[in-house]
Amino acid sequence: MAIIDNHSMRQSALFTKTRREAPKDEVAKNAQLLIRAGFIHKDMTGVYSYLPLGLKVLKKIEQIIREEMNELGGQELFLASLQNKELWEKTNRWDDAAVDIWFKTELKNGAFLGLGMTHEEPITNLMREHIRSIKDLPVAAYQFQTKFRNELRAKSGIMRGREFLMKDLYSFSKNEQSHFEFYEKTKTAYTKIYQRVGLGESTFLTFASGGIFAPYSHEFQTITDAGEDVIYVSREKRIAINKEVYTPEVMKELGVIAEELEEVKSVEVGNIFTLGTRFSEPLELFYNDEKGERTPVFMGSYGIGLGRVMGTIVETMSDEKGIIWPAEVSPFNIHLISLDPKDEVIRSTCDELYNAFQQMGKSVLYDDRDLRPGEKFNDADLIGIPLQIIVGSKNLTNGMVEMKERAKNMATLVPKEKIFATIA
Amino acid sequence: MAIIDNHSMRQSALFTKTRREAPKDEVAKNAQLLIRAGFIHKDMTGVYSYLPLGLKVLKKIEQIIREEMNELGGQELFLASLQNKELWEKTNRWDDAAVDIWFKTELKNGAFLGLGMTHEEPITNLMREHIRSIKDLPVAAYQFQTKFRNELRAKSGIMRGREFLMKDLYSFSKNEQSHFEFYEKTKTAYTKIYQRVGLGESTFLTFASGGIFAPYSHEFQTITDAGEDVIYVSREKRIAINKEVYTPEVMKELGVIAEELEEVKSVEVGNIFTLGTRFSEPLELFYNDEKGERTPVFMGSYGIGLGRVMGTIVETMSDEKGIIWPAEVSPFNIHLISLDPKDEVIRSTCDELYNAFQQMGKSVLYDDRDLRPGEKFNDADLIGIPLQIIVGSKNLTNGMVEMKERAKNMATLVPKEKIFATIA
Repeated sequence: MAIIDNHSMRQSALFTKTRREAPKDEVAKNAQLLIRAGFIHKDMTGVYSYLPLGLKVLKKIEQIIREEMNELGGQELFLASLQNKELWEKTNRWDDAAVDIWFKTELKNGAFLGLGMTHEEPITNLMREHIRSIKDLPVAAYQFQTKFRNELRAKSGIMRGREFLMKDLYSFSKNEQSHFEFYEKTKTAYTKIYQRVGLGESTFLTFASGGIFAPYSHEFQTITDAGEDVIYVSREKRIAINKEVYTPEVMKELGVIAEELEEVKSVEVGNIFTLGTRFSEPLELFYNDEKGERTPVFMGSYGIGLGRVMGTIVETMSDEKGIIWPAEVSPFNIHLISLDPKDEVIRSTCDELYNAFQQMGKSVLYDDRDLRPGEKFNDADLIGIPLQIIVGSKNLTNGMVEMKERAKNMATLVPKEKIFATIA
Repeated sequence: MAIIDNHSMRQSALFTKTRREAPKDEVAKNAQLLIRAGFIHKDMTGVYSYLPLGLKVLKKIEQIIREEMNELGGQELFLASLQNKELWEKTNRWDDAAVDIWFKTELKNGAFLGLGMTHEEPITNLMREHIRSIKDLPVAAYQFQTKFRNELRAKSGIMRGREFLMKDLYSFSKNEQSHFEFYEKTKTAYTKIYQRVGLGESTFLTFASGGIFAPYSHEFQTITDAGEDVIYVSREKRIAINKEVYTPEVMKELGVIAEELEEVKSVEVGNIFTLGTRFSEPLELFYNDEKGERTPVFMGSYGIGLGRVMGTIVETMSDEKGIIWPAEVSPFNIHLISLDPKDEVIRSTCDELYNAFQQMGKSVLYDDRDLRPGEKFNDADLIGIPLQIIVGSKNLTNGMVEMKERAKNMATLVPKEKIFATIA
């Protein structure tokens, strides 16, 4: 069952206000626009809170990912943030020399704890209680959980936070072949996710370095100047190579030549990894195979940063006036704008439309505030709901309301009674 | 729109296993049962992960609370976990001498951060950007967020964790009178929440000490021997007094006498506080009143720990066989148990029921595992879904299936074709 928050609301009740200027210390376009439009609040460098409009977008992204993870057979869980030092020592990832982005903290008794920056160790450990025989495999489990990363610099707004919500999926297979069958399915699921959140066109499956158990890992990279990565992309073949593995051998293997590849800046909006037995061996996640032999479970991990996706949408889908949300992640379906809430006819028309749109299953932000039209237009363009319905005296006298697609920045007049058919 | 996860699933696909024994170091009944039934995993003392069944219960509790908070006009947001030291110094709550449950951590540049144990400071601070005039009031905003508390001892399972999910609502009013109008409404909302999660009978509005701005605060206390509090309760008048304010004056004020009060152990499953200007003054959250005078916003805060509620349900609604979930928070509506999945007739009957229950809008856990009936019964009673439908050869030959209400531990035979009407 699809689970989407579909509340409508009057803008006069929304507590957040838009603002003309972003904080001076905020250099990332995504955060500047999201702060100005009242979607997020900057608490500190790299630390942001999500206000009601921002949380709505985040939840819609979350729900799209959840649906695709469930479709893969993933089972949702919710792991702890506080991390047991002993567990991470077993995989040699506790020491700051090995992993330099830990936030650590201390119990009253002086024992050290970590704050989860990823969750391979705890999930591998807990699976020991549930995976014993070959009949228990394969398993796929995922979560949405805050990750904490002690980044030295954090200048990319919500695209690289010191804390951020992440979807991480882990797979547990009996062997490499079974693993790669699942791994291929995750590529399809990820592709579908980026299409649904509106990044399909600009996002490319990208070959990156693989680690011990696979020649490559795969990243999903979205082309944007706000990105910190460089990829070589074939838009036609819809694949890309991360600069770090951009070699003649890789090109040959992928059947592409330098001439058809374009060098662009991009941001990694997701990645899928073959982990093999990197974690199952030191943490002793074994099962008894067909012959009764004790065998390490073959693992994979698959991440998507939700704030990273949301920030990338804003970087790539905005103009000088503000944000332009793709339909499926927009905080509301329709922005209904009353140009004169004090006028009785306009008010009753707007109220009627507000109710009727909801009856159609559309969520509506209804700007019923007593402000000048110019301010309302500016706010609506900044907030970026894809469809604006504008009701003013002049047009209404002629039986018309204005319909504006935010992406096109062009309004058309529609007879009031035809507005429902036009929208549907 | 109600938004409930209503997925059904086959138990053979569920990766968690039940276990006979809880870990030896686990002393709390709620955690023992939840671990044995595969709802949670114990990571460390006071730190638990939620497995798929446990997360389903947690999400149902969350959704009930969300609906009641929205009904109050609350707007949902999501504040950061990492806390700015400077902000907490302004209210004198940074120092460990003032607040001894902080987890603190450190940025690469040596600056100290806190891990949110509550969120009055950051929400008061961010509201400065959105509340300026009297027209911006009142505001109510809430979140579901992990809290971190450095508890010296944590022996109560998920009833007192070192990290736990909490709903915290904050209200912002123009003055004391406006505040108390809202405060009274939260009492009603809380009462409804405890009724819906199944704790209505055993939970009492309890007078507790109030702080500077109000004679009392109010707790919601559920009677259980697993609780750490002591209250004096009148079951008839449905009110209670916390031992800490149990004085003749308070009794007189509430119109009760010692003879009608019963001393019981209880657990605080929620609280509502008048904060007044305790935070708005030091953090400078002011607005301009009718006369244009700069006035501090009058605040309240309202908490419910989700794990605390879930643990309390298990403590108070379980027997020697396992958990007995109240209907509205049960991970599934129906536990469909096939006694012989290899038998073709039984399998097709069960598959048919599985589909038909889902068509009725019921979520089903379908035990299609190839195990002995005794094991299946034990698992079902341990997991605690309120309604079990059991399909076996002997009864099916007579056209009957067994229906067992977990709470009554008594089965009745129902003609197969009447099962839908009986359930509906």
